[in-house]
Amino acid sequence: MLKISLPRLRRDLVALSRFGRMPSGGVTRPAWSPPHEEARAWLLAQMKEAGLVTRVDPAGNTFGSYGDGAPAVLTGSHIDSVPDGGSLDGALGVLAGLECLRTIRESELPLGRPLTLVAWSDEEGRYASLFGSKAFTGKLEARKIAEMEAPDGERLLDAMARAGFNALDAPKAAQDPRSVAAYVELHIEQGPHLEAKGIPIGVVEGIVGIRRNRVAFVGEPDHAGTTPMPRRKDAFLGAAEYALKAREHVVKKGTGASVTNFGVVEVKPGVTNIVPSRATLVHEMRELDPRILGRLDRECADLARRIAKRRGLGVKIRPISRNEPARLHPEIQRTIEGAAARLGLRTLRMPSGAGHDAQNLATITRAGMIFIPSKGGKSHRPDEASDPLAIERGANVLLHTLLTLVTP
Amino acid sequence: MLKISLPRLRRDLVALSRFGRMPSGGVTRPAWSPPHEEARAWLLAQMKEAGLVTRVDPAGNTFGSYGDGAPAVLTGSHIDSVPDGGSLDGALGVLAGLECLRTIRESELPLGRPLTLVAWSDEEGRYASLFGSKAFTGKLEARKIAEMEAPDGERLLDAMARAGFNALDAPKAAQDPRSVAAYVELHIEQGPHLEAKGIPIGVVEGIVGIRRNRVAFVGEPDHAGTTPMPRRKDAFLGAAEYALKAREHVVKKGTGASVTNFGVVEVKPGVTNIVPSRATLVHEMRELDPRILGRLDRECADLARRIAKRRGLGVKIRPISRNEPARLHPEIQRTIEGAAARLGLRTLRMPSGAGHDAQNLATITRAGMIFIPSKGGKSHRPDEASDPLAIERGANVLLHTLLTLVTP
Repeated sequence: MLKISLPRLRRDLVALSRFGRMPSGGVTRPAWSPPHEEARAWLLAQMKEAGLVTRVDPAGNTFGSYGDGAPAVLTGSHIDSVPDGGSLDGALGVLAGLECLRTIRESELPLGRPLTLVAWSDEEGRYASLFGSKAFTGKLEARKIAEMEAPDGERLLDAMARAGFNALDAPKAAQDPRSVAAYVELHIEQGPHLEAKGIPIGVVEGIVGIRRNRVAFVGEPDHAGTTPMPRRKDAFLGAAEYALKAREHVVKKGTGASVTNFGVVEVKPGVTNIVPSRATLVHEMRELDPRILGRLDRECADLARRIAKRRGLGVKIRPISRNEPARLHPEIQRTIEGAAARLGLRTLRMPSGAGHDAQNLATITRAGMIFIPSKGGKSHRPDEASDPLAIERGANVLLHTLLTLVTP
Repeated sequence: MLKISLPRLRRDLVALSRFGRMPSGGVTRPAWSPPHEEARAWLLAQMKEAGLVTRVDPAGNTFGSYGDGAPAVLTGSHIDSVPDGGSLDGALGVLAGLECLRTIRESELPLGRPLTLVAWSDEEGRYASLFGSKAFTGKLEARKIAEMEAPDGERLLDAMARAGFNALDAPKAAQDPRSVAAYVELHIEQGPHLEAKGIPIGVVEGIVGIRRNRVAFVGEPDHAGTTPMPRRKDAFLGAAEYALKAREHVVKKGTGASVTNFGVVEVKPGVTNIVPSRATLVHEMRELDPRILGRLDRECADLARRIAKRRGLGVKIRPISRNEPARLHPEIQRTIEGAAARLGLRTLRMPSGAGHDAQNLATITRAGMIFIPSKGGKSHRPDEASDPLAIERGANVLLHTLLTLVTP
C-alpha cells in the first residue's frame, strides 16, 4: 500500500518553520511580510523540485500542479501564521499535500484527474481572513480592498505592493468552479477532542460560523476621587458585566459546542484617576448551526442594551465580521473515512471551531477536511505540536483520499 | 472690608487657559511640556508685575514673595493640568492667590509675616504625583528620580532637561520647615457636594489616602474557536469579575465615602480569536481613615486571589503608589470659618476625595484648604466650571484667611 515518507515531510516542516522563527520557538509569518515572501519562494522551489508546474495568482495564492486537464483535485492549506504561532497550523496541510503529490508522482500511478497543491494567502487574516480562498472562489469584493488593513494600520495595498502584487488585481484570481473537482485539506485539530478520545483522524462535518461585534459602552470621564460612587457612569464596569453575562448566556443557551471570546478590550481615557468613559470589547461568537448563531447574536445585543440602560450608559454595537457556517461535503467525508479504514485508523466526525479556507471552497466544489490530534489541544502558540506518528497517519489518510478522488 | 477684584482674577484665568488650549475647549498642560513652560514664564511675569520677588526652585516650584523675613505664610496650587482637563483645577488656587497678594499689597496694610505665592510642579503626576510639594517638604527620594516616567515612557530626567532643569537636583528644593508659618490653598471641589447642598465654601478637614495596585490576572492564550469553554483560563473574565466584586466590596464595607476605580485596563495578547492570557487593572482606592483604607486594600487582595484560584488563573498584585491620608490643621479650619463668617458665607466641613499638595505641606506646617462648588461636580474635563460668584467668594475667603494669618 502506497505511503508517504515521514522523514521527507518532517524535513520540509523544519525547513519551513525557519522562516519567521522567534526567540520563543514560535513562528511569526504574517501574509505579505518578508519572512512570508521568503517562505513562498522556498515553497515554489520545493514544488519545482517535486516536478510540479507552479503558478502564483493575483491574490497571492501559490499553486503546484501535477497532471493535465480539468477539473483538478485541489489539496493544500496556508503558509502564513499568527504572531508567535506554531509550526503546524497551515504548514502541515501544505507540506503534507506536497509530500502526497511527490509520492503519487513517484508511484507513476495513472491519474484520472490532475492534482493541484495550493497555499492560500492570508488565511489568518492579518489584512482579511481567508483572503486567498475568498478571491479564488469569487467572493472578494473589489470595492473593499482599498479599506483592508492590519491591526497596526498598514493597508493591504501597501503590504501587497511591497511583496510585488497589486491588491486591486486580487479579484482576478476568481476561478471557474468547473475547473475544480474537489478540495481536501489536512489540518491540526487545534482543540483537545481527538487527543482526549484517543482517535487519530477527525472527519470535519462543517466549519462554525463566526460573528464578531464591536460593543462599545459609553459613560462619563468623572474624577475618580471626588465623584460619589452612585453618580458614576463607569463604562468599564458595564463592559465587565456584559462579558461575564454574555459568556454565561452563550454557554447555557447555545448548543453546548457554541463558544465565545472577548479578545480585544480597550478602556479610555485609560488614566488611573479618571472613571472610564469608554470601554470597547470585540465580542466573538462561533457556532455551526446558523439559526442558533443568529439567535445568540441577537440575545447578546439585547443583554448589552439592558446592562447599559440599567447603568446609565450608552452602548453601540457594530458588526465587524461575519462568516456563515459551512457544511463540508458528505461524499468527501465518506471518502476520507474509507481511506482511514483502509489504513486501519479510527475516525471521529466533528465540527471545526476554527475558520478554514475549506469553507470558501465548499461554496464552489465538494470540500472536505481531515484533522489530526493537537498535543494538549494547543494552537496559535509556540508550543503547538502533534506526534510524528499522528502527522504520518494524517498525511497517509490525505494520500489515499486524494488517490480515490483522482482514480479514473 | 477688603475685597479682591473679580475682573482682574477672571482676566488672569482666561489668559492662563490659553496655554495648552485644545479644540475641545479643554486644557492640556502637563508638567514640563512646552505649554506648561510658557505658562510658567507668563506667571513669573504676572508676579513681577504685581511687585512680588520671584524664584524657581530646583524642583520647578515657582514662587512670588511679598514682604521680608520668616516664617512666611504660603498660598497657591499648581498650573499643570491633566490631558484635556479644565481651566480651574490648580489654576484657580494660583491666580486667586496672586490676586490676594496684589490686593493686600495695594492695601498697604502692615503685615506681621511675609506672604508667598507658589505654583507646585507636576501636581497631576504626569511623572510623579505632587512632585513639587514632595520635593519642598523633603519627601522626594533621590534614588527614585531616575526611574520616574510618564505613561508614554518619557523619563522625568528628559522632560525636565528639555525645560532647562536637572531632575537629580530636585531634592535640593527641600525647605527648612521653620521657614513656613502656614499653608492655605483654594481649589474647586471637583465633586457635587457643595453644589447639591447650596453651600458656597467647603472647609477641608483632610485629604483621602490613595492606594493604587497593579492587579494582573494570568491565564492561557488558547485558540478562541477550538478550545472548549470549560478548559479556558481567561484572564479578562477574571479581571472583569474582580472589578465588579471589588467595587461592591469598597462600597459596602467602606465608610460610605470610600471610593474605588479601575482606570487602566490592559488585555493581552489583544487579538479577537485568542483567549486573553493577561489582564491588568490599575485598582485605585481612596479613603480618609487610614485603618479602613488598609483593611479594604487587604480584603481586595484576598478577593483577587480567591477569584484567580477558582478560575485557574495566576494573579500578581503590585502596589504602585500609596499616599497616606492627611488631616488638615484644626486651627486653619477655624481661621477659614472665621473669614467666611465675616463675609456672611456658610461653610461645610468635608474631606477631599482628590489628592492635593496641601497633604505634603500638612507634614511640615499648619495646612488648610478652601473649596468652592464645581458645576455638576465635574472636573478633569473640558466642561469643568464654577460660577463667577463662587470664584469671587472663594477668593475673598482666601484673602481674609491670609490676612488673619499674617496679621501681627
